[in-house]
Amino acid sequence: MLLKNVRPMGAAPTDLLIADGRFADPATAGTPPAEVVDCGGRILIPGLVEAHTHLDKSLLGLPWYRNEVGPRLIDKITNEREVKVSLGLDPQVQSERQAIRSMAYGTTQIRSHVDVDTHHGLAGIEGVMATREKLKGYVDIEIVAFPQSSMMPRPGTVELMDEALSLGADVVGGIDPCGIERDPKGHLDAVFALAEKHGKPVDIHLHERDAMGGFSMEEIIARTRAHGMQGKVTISHAFCLGAAERDYVAGLQEQLAETRIHIATTAPASAPVPRVKELAELGILTCGGNDGIRDTWGPYGNGDMLERAMFIGLRNNLRRDDEVELALDICTHGGARVMDTEDYGLEIGCRADAVLVEGETLAEAVAMHAPRKLVLKAGRIVTRDGVAVIEAP
Amino acid sequence: MLLKNVRPMGAAPTDLLIADGRFADPATAGTPPAEVVDCGGRILIPGLVEAHTHLDKSLLGLPWYRNEVGPRLIDKITNEREVKVSLGLDPQVQSERQAIRSMAYGTTQIRSHVDVDTHHGLAGIEGVMATREKLKGYVDIEIVAFPQSSMMPRPGTVELMDEALSLGADVVGGIDPCGIERDPKGHLDAVFALAEKHGKPVDIHLHERDAMGGFSMEEIIARTRAHGMQGKVTISHAFCLGAAERDYVAGLQEQLAETRIHIATTAPASAPVPRVKELAELGILTCGGNDGIRDTWGPYGNGDMLERAMFIGLRNNLRRDDEVELALDICTHGGARVMDTEDYGLEIGCRADAVLVEGETLAEAVAMHAPRKLVLKAGRIVTRDGVAVIEAP
Repeated sequence: MLLKNVRPMGAAPTDLLIADGRFADPATAGTPPAEVVDCGGRILIPGLVEAHTHLDKSLLGLPWYRNEVGPRLIDKITNEREVKVSLGLDPQVQSERQAIRSMAYGTTQIRSHVDVDTHHGLAGIEGVMATREKLKGYVDIEIVAFPQSSMMPRPGTVELMDEALSLGADVVGGIDPCGIERDPKGHLDAVFALAEKHGKPVDIHLHERDAMGGFSMEEIIARTRAHGMQGKVTISHAFCLGAAERDYVAGLQEQLAETRIHIATTAPASAPVPRVKELAELGILTCGGNDGIRDTWGPYGNGDMLERAMFIGLRNNLRRDDEVELALDICTHGGARVMDTEDYGLEIGCRADAVLVEGETLAEAVAMHAPRKLVLKAGRIVTRDGVAVIEAP
Repeated sequence: MLLKNVRPMGAAPTDLLIADGRFADPATAGTPPAEVVDCGGRILIPGLVEAHTHLDKSLLGLPWYRNEVGPRLIDKITNEREVKVSLGLDPQVQSERQAIRSMAYGTTQIRSHVDVDTHHGLAGIEGVMATREKLKGYVDIEIVAFPQSSMMPRPGTVELMDEALSLGADVVGGIDPCGIERDPKGHLDAVFALAEKHGKPVDIHLHERDAMGGFSMEEIIARTRAHGMQGKVTISHAFCLGAAERDYVAGLQEQLAETRIHIATTAPASAPVPRVKELAELGILTCGGNDGIRDTWGPYGNGDMLERAMFIGLRNNLRRDDEVELALDICTHGGARVMDTEDYGLEIGCRADAVLVEGETLAEAVAMHAPRKLVLKAGRIVTRDGVAVIEAP
């Protein structure tokens, strides 16, 4: 395939050749390309990366869920576990719906946390694994076994987590070691033991704020060192890095940089958040995610990672073009690096996961996040004019 | 005109009659309606109200402006004053572009702050007044004479403000009495003297935070009492109400309620903001606005007040349906009441300013903010399927 009149990352218009699903050197091209796509001078960016979401729990495609849930985190967790039953939520169908929606917005790879609990067992993991299989070649899905309802207070959960990882989950999840688990040592020992046993990376939800979050973070850092897992651990949300005591945060950030722990941010407007510019300056790898999309937790979200780049920009007060470009980098290269993606990018030899976006510059593409003209997954067209080539169930 | 199969505020489907630009009682209808519009069971809401924006300074329709502006408020103000010249910005054209964009999103009335300064004189006011005239019958525009570059440190500005109000500006603006004006007494005395002289309401930008903002707010409150202007004063942004010391904020809010001062919020993700639920509980009237749309201050924004309701929801952590409905109320009735709009609403006798929105419920309409099917201004169709009936220059 030949992409004609395209601007890689907003550079001058050029033509890009794709062969065997990868960007190829036009000089070495043999036969003329089978398909020529006129890109109309649009900007090409590498595939967007959704690095923190919950594919199993979206309510997309269902009648409107009237949210009357209580204000505490535990209210939302308990409500969801019960509502999944009363709504008869099918994790396979829901994850397929959300993944196809993401694809239409130019996401070519997803890291999804998937609930593992004694109420629903491995139904979530099996459902999202089925979707992963079904959408192979359209969008890559990485699965985090996620103890949403807690692990330590609910006997049997550690064993289910172990099973999920044997079954095919790619990453060991965790959640607020103090706030939810009420047993930081027990929880984190279990998480890192599972990681060691299965040889898999870790991604822990950490909503805990201020000193409590900092304490849990230090415990994660200590285990990352002890298990030699530098570069293999992600902390999601990390609200404690948004704390007002910046000297204290600086100390935490120094240790994160040393242990090469990554940060996943969804940049919520109503919580303290990690400051992405500081993280970038310290060389701490940051990825972005949409978190839950229209679920029992809240009504918002659509799966668009270009819009999420805007949210990251708004939350971090990124106004200059170079700052907005950082937000986009977090939602592309940041996520790809956190997920250890091979051959990601627009360079020759890279897998042709790419998105044609509207706008004169990268900053405008983020600010507008207009429907995507074209989305490629390994050189195959998976979305045209904002519409995915396969239909959601 | 008859709107068939329409759900006012999400209620059961019904038919609504419009006669002489107002919602009319079908029982009293004489001749059959000239036009019947099938609303397909969609929800009808009253016209969206953009209660805080800057029509004169949007860069819509111009080549992309590469933002390399410094971080301080004063950097942005100085840069903008200069860039207006270098870009040859025409306030009439720019305000028309933004107003038509707003109309397409269902906004039927706008309060716009418009710059008044010794560099550009009344060019902004005259430009937006010309747009107001040109768009009469499509969208209502209220003009705030706004001393963006400060009033006290720049001799001649007070006189220009006076002229702007004589010329046709509707509201007296003001800006950070300490932070920008460096003379809170001088600035606020001048603002309230202008209001008294012209018999016009006041709307003051107050970005000042914590104790400084609280001090300026108390000075505004004192003058509101002294001039008998209860119910006629709006404070825009009011970041000091987002301060961490909630007891102190409670004291301020009590005085705001007593003096019936209104709050305009744009709910920025990166600043402390007034808490809209607290304000509603205290009976403090709150309206919403998009602030600047794609200007030299920042690249974001599109003029959509339904999306702004979502931003207000996200910033205030509004997740339950009734909470999301509060965000929508702020962007409809809140703005209409702040602007003293007569006959606003969907009741019989009200002016037929209304919007057909997508979604099963009001909360879904906000969360999705899909393109508007139909927008009516005094019963006249001004937008169909997301496209305004008049073209922007």
